[in-house]
Amino acid sequence: MSIDPSGTSDEGVTEQEARLRQLAASVPGIDPQAAAAAQQRQAQLTKPAGALGVLEDLSVQLAGVAGVCPPPVPERAVVAVFAGDHGVLAQGVSPWPQEVTAAMVGGICAGSAAVNVISRQVGATVVPVDVGVAGDLPEELPGLLRRRVRPGTADLTITEAMTRAEAVQAMLVGAEVARSVIAEHGAQVLLTGDMGIGNTTASAALIAAFTGAEPRTVTGRGTGVDHATLELKVKVIETALVQHAAAVESAVEDPVGVLAAMGGLEHAAIAGFILGAAEARVPVILDGVIAGSAALAAHALAPRARDACVAGHRSVEPGHTAALEHIGLRPLVDLDLRLGEGTGALLALPIVQSAARVLGEMATFEEAGIEA
Amino acid sequence: MSIDPSGTSDEGVTEQEARLRQLAASVPGIDPQAAAAAQQRQAQLTKPAGALGVLEDLSVQLAGVAGVCPPPVPERAVVAVFAGDHGVLAQGVSPWPQEVTAAMVGGICAGSAAVNVISRQVGATVVPVDVGVAGDLPEELPGLLRRRVRPGTADLTITEAMTRAEAVQAMLVGAEVARSVIAEHGAQVLLTGDMGIGNTTASAALIAAFTGAEPRTVTGRGTGVDHATLELKVKVIETALVQHAAAVESAVEDPVGVLAAMGGLEHAAIAGFILGAAEARVPVILDGVIAGSAALAAHALAPRARDACVAGHRSVEPGHTAALEHIGLRPLVDLDLRLGEGTGALLALPIVQSAARVLGEMATFEEAGIEA
Repeated sequence: MSIDPSGTSDEGVTEQEARLRQLAASVPGIDPQAAAAAQQRQAQLTKPAGALGVLEDLSVQLAGVAGVCPPPVPERAVVAVFAGDHGVLAQGVSPWPQEVTAAMVGGICAGSAAVNVISRQVGATVVPVDVGVAGDLPEELPGLLRRRVRPGTADLTITEAMTRAEAVQAMLVGAEVARSVIAEHGAQVLLTGDMGIGNTTASAALIAAFTGAEPRTVTGRGTGVDHATLELKVKVIETALVQHAAAVESAVEDPVGVLAAMGGLEHAAIAGFILGAAEARVPVILDGVIAGSAALAAHALAPRARDACVAGHRSVEPGHTAALEHIGLRPLVDLDLRLGEGTGALLALPIVQSAARVLGEMATFEEAGIEA
Repeated sequence: MSIDPSGTSDEGVTEQEARLRQLAASVPGIDPQAAAAAQQRQAQLTKPAGALGVLEDLSVQLAGVAGVCPPPVPERAVVAVFAGDHGVLAQGVSPWPQEVTAAMVGGICAGSAAVNVISRQVGATVVPVDVGVAGDLPEELPGLLRRRVRPGTADLTITEAMTRAEAVQAMLVGAEVARSVIAEHGAQVLLTGDMGIGNTTASAALIAAFTGAEPRTVTGRGTGVDHATLELKVKVIETALVQHAAAVESAVEDPVGVLAAMGGLEHAAIAGFILGAAEARVPVILDGVIAGSAALAAHALAPRARDACVAGHRSVEPGHTAALEHIGLRPLVDLDLRLGEGTGALLALPIVQSAARVLGEMATFEEAGIEA
């Protein structure tokens, strides 16, 4: 344990945790001048005021995040797919075996998964990241970032899913991936993706912890479990909330503690990824319920991180709606998706790009010679 | 009057109307084999069954429309923006003067309107069509198709908006535009667009006629009129429904009659455009309330035309929801838009393309070596 170099805390914290706190503290939030300029410009474009609805709000947000009006059109997009396994699978919360996580990572690296196909359609680059897969992965997996913090979490009904140090490390992996794709790929918008059999259970537990909602109201069928398995999932989450009552109690004050107790490695990584994007003034499009629960952690750690977030879509999982409402995000697409991988975020990408482009390229009434 | 060459009717109809009837009769609808093959293939892809929600249904529809599985990815997209003016503007239903229609057609030809900007983002070609603008247009307007049937409609509260022959002619203009962009641009998907000050009033009148809904429930604020103008719009539509009671009574049996009585030239053109797309087995993405009301006419004329339609978005206009529910279409995007021009359809284009691409390019469980 070293002393926190930022000097903002009187507890002793590890150097890694100090880095995480610095990251959280450096998230800038919306630039009010750029946002105001965007609002003003929207009012001059050749359309009735408000006629582009959510696109207008989005353009103001994008200007505020970038700190410039009009904002850059975020053409270079990267979806990072964080993969991890879940000890809670031992409780029978999913019909899919753990090996599917590793197999799907292989599929994503091969370019044949849904996230790859939709990325090709909308022009995004897929970056798969092993942050906590349990099984062995082949030596040759093109494009895979190997950042495994541990081989899957422990069973959260019995013990902490991971140690605090591991949660912090996974968060820093996410932040580092954000920084590197911005620096190396020139990414102008980041998208969250995830892969992990069992991760809707961990998500529901996190959402219950952060929002105070009853487990039953935020637990869904995930990949499509039957009624009996859904009942089991609810019980598992109720057990976890009792097992980790102290962490749950202080979830908002110490989101790292609750991530360690009940989260997945991909949840922690996505929370860090959001912080990394927000710090760099790059917007981040959230995918479904895994991203939504991770965003709750990022938001608790750095409330201004929310300003950089766009909710790509609304998942079928009921906990997702609860998470989005809790942090005040409106999903752009609502198409009964429940696949994850980043697919819902990708479908929202052209909407985000269009919002930015409209602000920069549409004529004003003055330019068009029309009296408004 | 000539005798209907198709011999399917015992009334004397014009040659043009006979062509329209032939077009309606030649709409093929869904190919059940291709649709079944698509459904079967969806079940084999590396994802939980149903996890791609509406995208899965869309892929089945696209296969059924094209008559082949997997369906072609509709990369080459054309949005036709049909422009027309409205005599009902004399009743004060919009704060915008009629000249704005011509000015906006100029803006669309110059590439500076919202439809152009979003088309650049999603990779669509804009084809503006003057089917009924009232004012003079400059001689040089790049790309404009000059197909003016008449310079705006008459005031529907006083007389028929146009003659039956003009309505038929405008529908054939729409169908001809569909055919030519498919033949010349190689368009694989068509999108509807519209421009016309006053056209939400005509749309609400058509929707009331086709669905039987009360005018008040299907009339909205259009470009953003105040409460008094909204009340006036409702009255205007009530007056029109009385004035054209006979046409309204037989709307479903004779949609051409109700289009002539209360529609706009762009409504008629869009109805024909939908039929032209459907005949050619090309999907057509509908924009907002103007397209929705035109789709009611196309659907009444050729119920199978609906199979080729995808509802791009849900407009703020309440009549739009009524129209979509009436023909059973679920909108893909719901972002409080009320601009028209084709903007809502364009935002849905990448979703439609992604649905087709997923079916063709995702690996099956067998290919991925995963036991489902």
